[in-house]
Amino acid sequence: MKPERMNAFTDGVIAILITILVLELRPPAGHQLSDILDEKSKLLAYLLSFVFVAIYWVNHHHLMQIVHRIDGRTLWANIHLLFWLSLTPIATAWLGDAGVKSGPVAAYVIVLLGCAVSYTLLTLSLLALYESESHLAQAIGSDRKGKLSLAFYLAALAFAFVVPWVSVALFVAVALIWFVPDRRVERVLVDDR
Amino acid sequence: MKPERMNAFTDGVIAILITILVLELRPPAGHQLSDILDEKSKLLAYLLSFVFVAIYWVNHHHLMQIVHRIDGRTLWANIHLLFWLSLTPIATAWLGDAGVKSGPVAAYVIVLLGCAVSYTLLTLSLLALYESESHLAQAIGSDRKGKLSLAFYLAALAFAFVVPWVSVALFVAVALIWFVPDRRVERVLVDDR
Amino acid sequence: MKPERMNAFTDGVIAILITILVLELRPPAGHQLSDILDEKSKLLAYLLSFVFVAIYWVNHHHLMQIVHRIDGRTLWANIHLLFWLSLTPIATAWLGDAGVKSGPVAAYVIVLLGCAVSYTLLTLSLLALYESESHLAQAIGSDRKGKLSLAFYLAALAFAFVVPWVSVALFVAVALIWFVPDRRVERVLVDDR
Amino acid sequence: MKPERMNAFTDGVIAILITILVLELRPPAGHQLSDILDEKSKLLAYLLSFVFVAIYWVNHHHLMQIVHRIDGRTLWANIHLLFWLSLTPIATAWLGDAGVKSGPVAAYVIVLLGCAVSYTLLTLSLLALYESESHLAQAIGSDRKGKLSLAFYLAALAFAFVVPWVSVALFVAVALIWFVPDRRVERVLVDDR
Repeated sequence: MKPERMNAFTDGVIAILITILVLELRPPAGHQLSDILDEKSKLLAYLLSFVFVAIYWVNHHHLMQIVHRIDGRTLWANIHLLFWLSLTPIATAWLGDAGVKSGPVAAYVIVLLGCAVSYTLLTLSLLALYESESHLAQAIGSDRKGKLSLAFYLAALAFAFVVPWVSVALFVAVALIWFVPDRRVERVLVDDR
Repeated sequence: MKPERMNAFTDGVIAILITILVLELRPPAGHQLSDILDEKSKLLAYLLSFVFVAIYWVNHHHLMQIVHRIDGRTLWANIHLLFWLSLTPIATAWLGDAGVKSGPVAAYVIVLLGCAVSYTLLTLSLLALYESESHLAQAIGSDRKGKLSLAFYLAALAFAFVVPWVSVALFVAVALIWFVPDRRVERVLVDDR
Repeated sequence: MKPERMNAFTDGVIAILITILVLELRPPAGHQLSDILDEKSKLLAYLLSFVFVAIYWVNHHHLMQIVHRIDGRTLWANIHLLFWLSLTPIATAWLGDAGVKSGPVAAYVIVLLGCAVSYTLLTLSLLALYESESHLAQAIGSDRKGKLSLAFYLAALAFAFVVPWVSVALFVAVALIWFVPDRRVERVLVDDR
Repeated sequence: MKPERMNAFTDGVIAILITILVLELRPPAGHQLSDILDEKSKLLAYLLSFVFVAIYWVNHHHLMQIVHRIDGRTLWANIHLLFWLSLTPIATAWLGDAGVKSGPVAAYVIVLLGCAVSYTLLTLSLLALYESESHLAQAIGSDRKGKLSLAFYLAALAFAFVVPWVSVALFVAVALIWFVPDRRVERVLVDDR
């Protein structure tokens, strides 16, 4: 089966998730520009959730550039990823409301872990479809970035119950790693041309 | 007419339906990880509705892989299916709120029946367009899965007013049957290649 | 310019509009199946708005089947149509809340008129792009259905302030006329094959 | 990489943003047509936000007509634009609620500036990908419209704290300039055919 419709569905779901926290924003009650600051925690939560979901979209976009065939397992691996992604807005909202406390930080890390694990499973389901000498295997390689992220997230989960700020530092670090989309994929695509 | 735009529209509607219950989720009031449990019935309802809608998306995706021509009747059969699917989030929400009582269980089964019947009608409208020796007819065959589902749902509707838990067991069983997407379609596609 | 992206955008907007009233539905407070009746006016408004928007989607789908070239004017004519369509859910909600009174019925007819006029303008902007001997001109012909609808709506607007029920009868009649998608288009497409 | 998926994702996000203020509209409490006027500031805010987002969609549509290759930087430049666009509904809502006061007017101008700057950055990221003699460079030319808009917005930001109505006049003027989609692009496309 071709991946076009799976990609289009993914884009639709992510378009909703990336904008869902806009619905939480309310116009401030006052008339001064500084009154925006009343909404600053919600604005910040919106920005965080937006960037986070965008990172996954960009990486999904890059990954699927070199995938031209999928099967039923891929569809479910992808839906599994969408499920975890769909929880990031609400996890971000809790973090924005309650601040850097054990509960919201741990919940946030669990959602991030869910996203990372399901993204890895999606990658594996694709690798299973392709032969090892393919572009995909070459582009993903040993997936050091993926393994590193998982290690960071597990550490962040442990720290959440001790020093929550360390957890935040850890997952912001992971976000930065992924912010740069998968250059390996672009390299393979260029070689291919 | 070609089915591309109908599929894209279906994907858009399902992308909304699959995420609509996210809007019901609220950040917990407390700061402990265990405070998530206050939201557990809503989380569970979200998961149930997500899986349910996803099953239909996966099966619709499989079905339309081998359909390359549609007519006006197909469009309306598809919109009819979307209408019933659009009621599943609200039916799930009632089930989540009220628990396993006659009312919400019966309503849930009615929505499931509506989805199943309208999916069957969509299949029939497609079969009417194609000749009997086509791949589609071959892939759908005698539609034992579809007929079995309808029988289970009718039984579930009757039990809703007597022992609602039996109804729940019945429709969970149907969900499991459909969770595995239509292997028959994949088989036909492979033969075709 | 090609119409593909305009169609995709239209599908996205209509997918949202067709499901937006789902957000108004609330699970009933009780545990009996009959408690659904508490929500019956909202359910009915949802069904009405769903069918109405679906009719436009089906006709837009048919119309654009034979259009392969658009210009900037077409984009704005299409956005104008989307604007009026986007008001149908709220107009339906008022009708559902307040019942068949002058205010909501007149508002509903005004929105229907807006949709009908903007759809006609979209058709005209397309005809201006194509030569008169084209398939499009042939398929649309003298647009009797369009002219009849406008006449019915104008009558319905007048009756809204006298006998609102007559208005309702008039616009339901128009809906029925359009429910059957444009057979003329299908005929042209078949001749073409 | 090809731009198709980026365009589709953009369409999905803009489809949500353009309709998000519909959710703010409530049916009036009364039964008279004139009761709509109770909602007039929300209706006006909806119309303004709709037109504003539509202008960006039309211009994005035109711009991408002549772009057939993108890279990772383009994806992020585009997401950056979507972020600012996603703030226009809430900025419009504040303006609608509070009226022409310093605070909401300045906030509105800041969002408009964000959109204009990020659109310019998107254009630059595309120009960097293409050689100077390409159609794109030719179509965009010296980007006088873009530079003029930025100048108007900066002036509007200054006036917001002195005479807010002048700011409104300035950004309405910019909207009118852009309302007419980029004829330069259409000209190039026509020459190309």
